[in-house]
Amino acid sequence: MQFTVTATDGNARRGTIIFSRGEVETPAFMPVGTGGAVRTVAPEEVAESGARVILGNTFHLMLRPGTQVIKAHGTLHDFMHWSGPILTDSGGFQVWSLADSRNITEQGVTFRSPFDGSKVYLGPEESMSVQQDLGSDVVMVFDECTAYPTTYENAESSMNRSLRWARRCRDAHGGEDQALFGIAQGGIYPELRIRSLEALEEIGFDGYALGGLSVGEPTEQMHSVLEQITPQMPGGSPRYLMGVGRPEDILTGVRSGIDLFDCVLPTRNARNGWLYTRDGIVRLKNSANRTDTNPIEEDCRCPACISYSRSYLRHLFTTSESLGKRLCTLHNLWFFGALMEDIRGAVATGTLDSFSRAFLESYLGGGADVA
Amino acid sequence: MQFTVTATDGNARRGTIIFSRGEVETPAFMPVGTGGAVRTVAPEEVAESGARVILGNTFHLMLRPGTQVIKAHGTLHDFMHWSGPILTDSGGFQVWSLADSRNITEQGVTFRSPFDGSKVYLGPEESMSVQQDLGSDVVMVFDECTAYPTTYENAESSMNRSLRWARRCRDAHGGEDQALFGIAQGGIYPELRIRSLEALEEIGFDGYALGGLSVGEPTEQMHSVLEQITPQMPGGSPRYLMGVGRPEDILTGVRSGIDLFDCVLPTRNARNGWLYTRDGIVRLKNSANRTDTNPIEEDCRCPACISYSRSYLRHLFTTSESLGKRLCTLHNLWFFGALMEDIRGAVATGTLDSFSRAFLESYLGGGADVA
Repeated sequence: MQFTVTATDGNARRGTIIFSRGEVETPAFMPVGTGGAVRTVAPEEVAESGARVILGNTFHLMLRPGTQVIKAHGTLHDFMHWSGPILTDSGGFQVWSLADSRNITEQGVTFRSPFDGSKVYLGPEESMSVQQDLGSDVVMVFDECTAYPTTYENAESSMNRSLRWARRCRDAHGGEDQALFGIAQGGIYPELRIRSLEALEEIGFDGYALGGLSVGEPTEQMHSVLEQITPQMPGGSPRYLMGVGRPEDILTGVRSGIDLFDCVLPTRNARNGWLYTRDGIVRLKNSANRTDTNPIEEDCRCPACISYSRSYLRHLFTTSESLGKRLCTLHNLWFFGALMEDIRGAVATGTLDSFSRAFLESYLGGGADVA
Repeated sequence: MQFTVTATDGNARRGTIIFSRGEVETPAFMPVGTGGAVRTVAPEEVAESGARVILGNTFHLMLRPGTQVIKAHGTLHDFMHWSGPILTDSGGFQVWSLADSRNITEQGVTFRSPFDGSKVYLGPEESMSVQQDLGSDVVMVFDECTAYPTTYENAESSMNRSLRWARRCRDAHGGEDQALFGIAQGGIYPELRIRSLEALEEIGFDGYALGGLSVGEPTEQMHSVLEQITPQMPGGSPRYLMGVGRPEDILTGVRSGIDLFDCVLPTRNARNGWLYTRDGIVRLKNSANRTDTNPIEEDCRCPACISYSRSYLRHLFTTSESLGKRLCTLHNLWFFGALMEDIRGAVATGTLDSFSRAFLESYLGGGADVA
């Protein structure tokens, strides 16, 4: 993996990450393909939306279908027919989310599989091994997500555990062709975030991520952490904001210096009939769309807007026809693809400020209210 | 609509139907797009499978979204983005199928909408009006399906009612660009079928269909009716066997002189993970496929077989990922598309007998057992 910053605009960076499986222009958004598929769409459709790298979930894939099945195909890429780079998360966030059915110790996490109730163990070394089996282009360290809200002391001790696990991940990481990213924790406490970052940099990673954001804290708090911390992340490596997010969060992230984002919002919202437009969120199921022969968005070039009306798309939802979710997912992925392309253009031309202002005025002014 | 027979092989015919919206090579199979979509797939994917004409359902579309919504888009083609010809059934079979919630009189049928319980009336004139609104390229007469089993007397009186309704449809049919097909009824009684056909021919239609087959009668009985009746259908017009069927039924139909088929089997079976191959039906969910890195069918060029393994497709079903149903639907549509292409080639070269023998030996010998 090779990362180059090609332009800056304030703290924002325009760059390129070269993987053996292809180039990624940054800032970039990574659609989430949790269990070996970006839900409702085919990989070539994901690529057509402008996405060049997707995310896979260690937690889901190790349980279903299991790494043995994937390895029989080669890598996750071969299994799911995605030839571009794949970043896999470590499973840390998912096992932490299991709340009632997991037990976290210094060694690792024992949990009950939500699919068959079986007892499973996942620790730093196991996560590295699974991600090596998946053949991920970017491997994430196994970390402990810090809860929100929590005390400074709890955030500190959790952050320190994540650092100890990060060291074990670095030691266990074997893949020469696989980049390894560290994850800074520390909750909403800037001082902890900085200490986490400094310690990670000392261990040495190919990229650095901010974890444990967008987990319930107020937007202003998230944006405040971003603005304080991101500029202090190592400048020569990709910076990745995990699990974020909404267009307004992405803009704040980019403006503070983030290069990579991932989030389930465009795909999950699409399956619920919530569609991103420059004028805010369109709720497809609203009765006003029953007879509306216009596309979701007039000047959008996505497969849904080129060929179908809001009325028809709504009809597909009404009749439980999966083509509806697929077309809406494509629209939202194209919206995020176009947003990132516009952002990259604005950074390159030093016009990110005015682009952000104009975009947010239209987008938030249009009544967007989907969290 | 213009129909030309270009070759024959025994009773089998190879032909071309020219519609203003495109040419259809016959014998042809029409995928079913009940409610304005061929389930789980996009129209361009249907076309890529080799299908040139699809079927829409008057019953479903008049209830959801209603003809007013479709007319606001133009025709059903514009609504669902299918530019080729569309044949619509009359709604007769669907209201008849409602058994407990419909009342059939000489005038027409009153029934409860299965979607909202509202009382709806559909008769010959109403069916013609809806199909005109849909802009169908082929309009089917509104008929009464004859139950199986039933007495000769009941089959006769039902057949006569269908004839009276067929005359009313002919009188009410207004679309100059729309072909109108009559439907021969008469159950399993050849004499009634012949009388029905003769009376329909006297009224005069652009094509002739056999209705009320594959409704529960034994296969041999269906095939026997086909072999006795089809050769006596008007030779200068397309002959359409409604709601059929399985590959073996299609072969019998073609050999007796049928030109058009429609059936939900390839699409419905696909959504259940039942896949057509030259060696019979593959049940994707079988545990043997969990680790099978081979495609569904080695030499198949469909989008599922070109890019995905049985193991991956099975994984998509296991994880309730709709891409699985879509890819399996595509495979089955491609299978039917290839079968019809092979059949057309065999008729053209006078080799239908040997093709049928070889196909059935492999297909039925492979353990196919899906009804």
